Order: sequence, then structure tokens, then C-alpha cells
Amino acid sequence: MKLVGALSLFLTATSAFTVAPNGRPTSTSLSMSGVTRNPNFSKLAGGYLFPEIGRRRNAYLEENPEMADRIISLGIGDTTQPIPENILSGLVEGASKLGTKDGYSGYGAEQGKADLREKIASTLYNGLIEPEEVFVSDGAKCDIMRLQQMFGTGVVSAVQDPSYPVYVDTSVMMGQTGLQDPETMQYENIVYMPCTAENEFFPDYASLPRADVVYFCSPNNPTGAAATKEQLTDLVNTCKERGSILVFDAAYAPFIRSEGVPKSVFEIEGAKDVAIEVNSFSKYAGFTGVRLGWTVIPSNLQFSDGSLVRDDFNRVMTTAFNGASNIVQSGGMACLEEKGLEEINTLIDYYLENAKILKDTMESIGYKVFGGTDAPYVFVQLPEGQKSWDVFSDILEKAQVVTIPGAGFGPGGEGYLRLSAFAPRDNVLEACERLKVTMA
Amino acid sequence: MKLVGALSLFLTATSAFTVAPNGRPTSTSLSMSGVTRNPNFSKLAGGYLFPEIGRRRNAYLEENPEMADRIISLGIGDTTQPIPENILSGLVEGASKLGTKDGYSGYGAEQGKADLREKIASTLYNGLIEPEEVFVSDGAKCDIMRLQQMFGTGVVSAVQDPSYPVYVDTSVMMGQTGLQDPETMQYENIVYMPCTAENEFFPDYASLPRADVVYFCSPNNPTGAAATKEQLTDLVNTCKERGSILVFDAAYAPFIRSEGVPKSVFEIEGAKDVAIEVNSFSKYAGFTGVRLGWTVIPSNLQFSDGSLVRDDFNRVMTTAFNGASNIVQSGGMACLEEKGLEEINTLIDYYLENAKILKDTMESIGYKVFGGTDAPYVFVQLPEGQKSWDVFSDILEKAQVVTIPGAGFGPGGEGYLRLSAFAPRDNVLEACERLKVTMA
Repeated sequence: MKLVGALSLFLTATSAFTVAPNGRPTSTSLSMSGVTRNPNFSKLAGGYLFPEIGRRRNAYLEENPEMADRIISLGIGDTTQPIPENILSGLVEGASKLGTKDGYSGYGAEQGKADLREKIASTLYNGLIEPEEVFVSDGAKCDIMRLQQMFGTGVVSAVQDPSYPVYVDTSVMMGQTGLQDPETMQYENIVYMPCTAENEFFPDYASLPRADVVYFCSPNNPTGAAATKEQLTDLVNTCKERGSILVFDAAYAPFIRSEGVPKSVFEIEGAKDVAIEVNSFSKYAGFTGVRLGWTVIPSNLQFSDGSLVRDDFNRVMTTAFNGASNIVQSGGMACLEEKGLEEINTLIDYYLENAKILKDTMESIGYKVFGGTDAPYVFVQLPEGQKSWDVFSDILEKAQVVTIPGAGFGPGGEGYLRLSAFAPRDNVLEACERLKVTMA
Repeated sequence: MKLVGALSLFLTATSAFTVAPNGRPTSTSLSMSGVTRNPNFSKLAGGYLFPEIGRRRNAYLEENPEMADRIISLGIGDTTQPIPENILSGLVEGASKLGTKDGYSGYGAEQGKADLREKIASTLYNGLIEPEEVFVSDGAKCDIMRLQQMFGTGVVSAVQDPSYPVYVDTSVMMGQTGLQDPETMQYENIVYMPCTAENEFFPDYASLPRADVVYFCSPNNPTGAAATKEQLTDLVNTCKERGSILVFDAAYAPFIRSEGVPKSVFEIEGAKDVAIEVNSFSKYAGFTGVRLGWTVIPSNLQFSDGSLVRDDFNRVMTTAFNGASNIVQSGGMACLEEKGLEEINTLIDYYLENAKILKDTMESIGYKVFGGTDAPYVFVQLPEGQKSWDVFSDILEKAQVVTIPGAGFGPGGEGYLRLSAFAPRDNVLEACERLKVTMA
């Protein structure tokens, strides 16, 4: 085999072994190593939720290829509107300047560029937090795993049930849990905090077993519930009393339009004593594919031995991460300019109008609906006895609309269906027409 | 406190608690949680190497602020040349199109865009691997942690000594090790494979205790040694015999210019039976700040229970990662066009010429020097008895040149100094003049 030109940059022209004429290596039989599989991975039941949804959608399309153009996704919370002008110019300039001698930059601080950390602290938190408490990242999902990495194997985690599946899945992967009970669908050694219509989707943590780390997302994914100031004050106080660390996921906070509902946990007095906040530009700046988020770790928060949580998170960030892309951080700066914030506001208006259309439609055909006012998710209560995965399949087959079954977010989500408001308006309107037929 | 305009997107106008006139919260006293610190973090001796180098440099500059303009970095391997035209246009277009209805994209596959996976497999590996074996990521450092996450707590890791500190540090963080022995500076339960001038920097793994996972970087960081085809064949065969998984770090492979030296482990017959390859665009496309890498997991590689390694890595990628930035992946595609590969080649020429200058200079003043021909690192052997951290400090103080002490890469690096060839040419030449004075 002769390799020519630039290819020899990556392969050595004289050393490759026999390759079949199609370029494929000749042997591909299975090869068993002597390395034991990480036992925590065998505890995981099924794949991660969203790829699983995609798999089922693709399986449907394989059997029904004529439906490819008809399919509409109200599934994964994936933004669809183009990035607005000012924010876009931040990204484009961030890329362009890398071609110039003065504008080029290599490795930045793993914690993020100083100007962006400063801007987040001053513009978004009005000085409630310090720049050195901000860790800029490639997104909230990745930060949750890095937090788990920091907490390690020995902690007990509590989650809202239902909730974003990353909290539970990463707890399992880290070895914090036992097996999943096939009856309850709950993992051993996770504290599930029921969030149902009965308790207005706000958990009663004080009545449940203590956890070391309490994951709490508001507005919640998938229920769309946003905790009030009183509720959040209670939760912060309970965590303080029980010595729990609260990981507050604020990824949807700017969607809150109701008066007086907190958008950051640090609006609650005493929160810096117990809380970490995870955040993301994904959903309101159109950055789901661009990748930018941040996590706030208060400098005063300690483990039980007096060591600083911030120091250990800093060790994770510097050792296992190399900073968010410099191009993307430049886009983040543009988001936080006055014009960028206005553009974000306009995007949120658009998606919240979608949510209202979905909510009104489902209510008009007799469903009880939650969320959708302070959140881009509409959580639809199904009639008694209907299983959410069955309803998901039914809607996919009859209406070619992709939704997410509530059970995908934990056992507490059974009996509900999540609709995402991130589709283009036309698709939302068309989906509503079909859902009126299929679900009425 | 009244919040106005866009600020209310992120904070609730009516609910913030009392903030001091400077905007700072009124209480910042320490707060001890009841959460036990992850014991693995207390095993880590000191901070991560490269921030520690930066800390010492900054401490020096604080005491000698008049030297700020004089300082030259031959320290961290951070690219300094602007991104060339074709690759840059890929990045800029990747950003620009997000502002259009047709060009916008949100979440991509967590494993990377299909076209980029295909292009990596076909262009860089000439079909030796399949697209579905390629996992595109935000860099090799992050992938090493994700591999550790997959392997878990129960494995024994082997590392070249000296080596890139991420292998050992992440093994410690995952709980695979015991404490560091203050005499030998080695962590308990890590297999250190000595790589010294005596064995031409190639380890004799067969004579050492078996490890589950063998981390091997060629060309090596920091020694600059590139393993020959015979050496690599031996290593692959030994790993196969012992049932070890070889994690081959090829981040510097395109710097290899010697005839017949492999640039990918998959050039070795049988490597797909034992090896994973970690790779990165950082060092040769100028992407240290842009963030793009990939990891190849052969589809036939199994754990001892017959489960596929690729499936568990896929679970990590989908659950704890959300894909490399779509903008950056567009830049990756441009790297792999004919023009992009030529640009990469030119950048490598430039940095290798730097390496030659550094190597020649150090040899001219009587040092024994390794690396620097097939690698962007020059590894200088210090006179008997000199400690590398002392020499580092001495050069910083007398010549205002930042280097990296060999001991920072593991106990086997003691007695050596690493010089990076990534500085601009002028800086390299000036540094050489100063080193001739200071080190002669």
C-alpha cells in the first residue's frame, strides 16, 4: 500500500500492514481483553434517554420511509432558531481573529477567560457572586459529570422524580448506587424526591432520607415547574440543616416570566452556604450545538473536613478539561452585551409562545397540562392507566410527532408526556393539528 | 435593589436579598457541609502541573514586575502561530452559517458529525478503521478522563515514566491508586514504566507487573521519543499476551518525519485487538484553544466478560458529553481537505525548525539532548546531581525563560528539562541566546 501526499502526515508510507482492496483491515474478529468491565456500567438499564428516542424514531422511519418528510420533533429540547446578529458576530469574530497574529490565542485558563467570568458575575448575578467562583465550561451536562467526578463514589445523591436523566445516570456510572429495582424502577441508594401534581411538583426533601448531594432543577425539566421563593428558601434551609450540598440547575431560568420567582439560587439568602449553580447558554442563545455553560461554586463552601469544594472542582477542571473553545467564549461575551441580552429575550419570547400554543391545544382537547408558562416544556398528564412509552409510540405512529415519555425521566414521570417548545412555529402549529386528531 | 432591563432575565427584580453598595453579598463566612470530601482528591500531591508552572511564573513576575516584557515561554506546549487560511475559513463558515435558517444546527450526535467521523476514518486512517469507531471530542485531555470514567475504580494503570501528567492524575482521582510514596514520588498501584536514556526511552513492559490499562504516548511528551515499528509491535504483542488494553496517545504523531516510524498504533498488525487511540488537532492545526480531538475504539475490542469497550465508551460520551462544538467540527473538516493538510504540514515544519534550533543550541553548549526531531519537545539531560525544579527556577530568574522541569512528568523525569518548540521563532532565537549565557 502506497500512501501519498498529505495522508503520510498521519500514516507511515512504508509500515502499514496488509489492507484489503477496499481499504479495510483484513481481520475484524472479536478480541477479548483481560480487563474487567466497570461493574457500574452493567447497572445502567438501557441507553441514555435521548439517543434512545432517536433510535426509536429511526426504527419507525426505517419501516415507514415515506413518512420521513412528515416527522415533527417535539422531543429533545433542541433549539431551532438561527443565532441572532449580535451573538453571531461574537462567534464569527472569535473565529476570524484566530487567523491574525495579534488575535490568535492558544490554551486559555481552564476555568474560562477572565473577561467572561467577570461579565457573568457582574451582568448576570449583579455581583452576588465573584468572578473566581465562576467556572466556564462546554455545557451543563458535562459539568454535572465533572461535579460527580469531584464528589466521587461515596456520596448519596437525591434527585427530583422525574428529572433530567443525567443526574441519576452519572450517579450510577460513578458507583454511588446499587442495582435498579425492576419493580419500582428506582436505583438503590438514590433518594428519589417525588414531584407530582399532588405536591405541585415541589419535593418534600425534609421528609425523605438525607442525601449528601441534592440535584434540583428549576424550572424543572421535564415538568416545567418553577419553584417559588418560599419553596426555594425552604429547600436551602433544609439542605443547610442536613449538611447537604444543593446542586441547582438553572439552565432554563431565563424562561421564567412570573413575578417574584427566583432565577438563581443565589437570590435566596444563605444559598452560598449550601449551593452550587449549574448553568448553560444552550437553550436561550441557541447554543445547543455551540457548547457553552458555567458552574458557580461559592468560595466559602466546604466539605466536612474543612477543605474547599471550589478547590477540588478547580482540580477537576484543570486536570480533566482544557477550557471551552475560545471561539465559543467570544460568542458568550456577545450574549452578555446589551444587544445580545435583547436577542436572547426575543428568542425566549418565541419559544414561550410555542409553549403557550402547545399548552392551549392540549387543554382544549381536555388534558390537564403543567409547565409551559415559565419553561419551554409542557408536561401533559395522561388519562389514568395509560403508559407513557405506549403513548409515545402511538403518537409517533399515528401523527409522526416525536414526544418524550415521562417515564424516561424517572419512575415519577410515568403517566405524563413531555412536549418541547423548541420546534419552529410552523411545526408546532402542524403538530398541534395532528395531536388534536390523535389524542382527542 | 432594583434590577433593570435585560438583567432581569437572570435575576428576579423583586426577590434579591440585601446586597452591599458595591454589589457584593453581605456574608461570605466559611460554611461547612456534611459532605465527606472525596478521599481520592486528598491523595493528589500539589496542583496540576501546568497551572503550577503558571503560578510560579506569576509569583516571579509579582516580585519582578519589570521583567514582564522580557519573559519567554518554552513551557507548556501551547501553539502560537495563527490558524492558516483554509482551516480558518472552515471555522468562520461554521460560525456564520448558524445565523441562517438553513445552516443552523443544534445538538449534533455526541460522537461527532457523521461527515467528520467518515473523513477521519478515510483520510487519516485510509480505511484502517471504521467511521463508527471514531468518537469526536473537545480534546485528548478530556477523552483521557472519559476513558478513566469508563474503566472505573478497579483497574490498574501503567504509564511511561516520565509522561503527560493527566494519566496519573486522573487515575488517582478515579480511586485506582493508593497514596504517593514521599521517597519514590510514585503512587501505590500504578505501574511506572521507566523511560530513560538507558533504554532509549522505550519501556520494557513485559518485565514489569501487569496492568489492565497501559498508557503510551508516541512521540512521547516530554521525552520526544518516537517508538519504532519493532518497538510498537512488541508492545502490542505484549499487551495482547497479558490481556492489557493499550491506550495509545498519538497527539504528536504528525510531527514524526523519520522514515518508517508509525504514526498510528493501527499501523501495527493486531493493534485493533488491544488498542484504543487518542488524538487531537491541538498541536498541529493550532487548535489548543479551539478544542477538537478524537478517540478511536475498535468495534471488536472486548472486556473480559465479552461486552464491547466501544459500547461503554459510547455510554460515557452520550451521558456525560454533548458533542464538540459544531463550529469547531466545521474547522476539523477544513483541516482534512487537501489544502488544510498542506497548511498543517507547513505549521509542523515551522515548529520542527524551532525544535532543531533549540536542540542545536543546547548541544552546542555541551548538553546531551533527546527528542526534537520527530517531536515538538526537546528533552535536555541535566548534569548529574542537578534537580530539575531548581534548574527551572534558576533559568526563570536569570534568563526569564519558562521551561518545564522533568520531574513534573513523574519521578523518572528528574534530571531533565523539557523545552517546548511552540514559541514564535523570534522568541526561540532570543531564548537560545539567553540559555547559552545562563546554562553554559
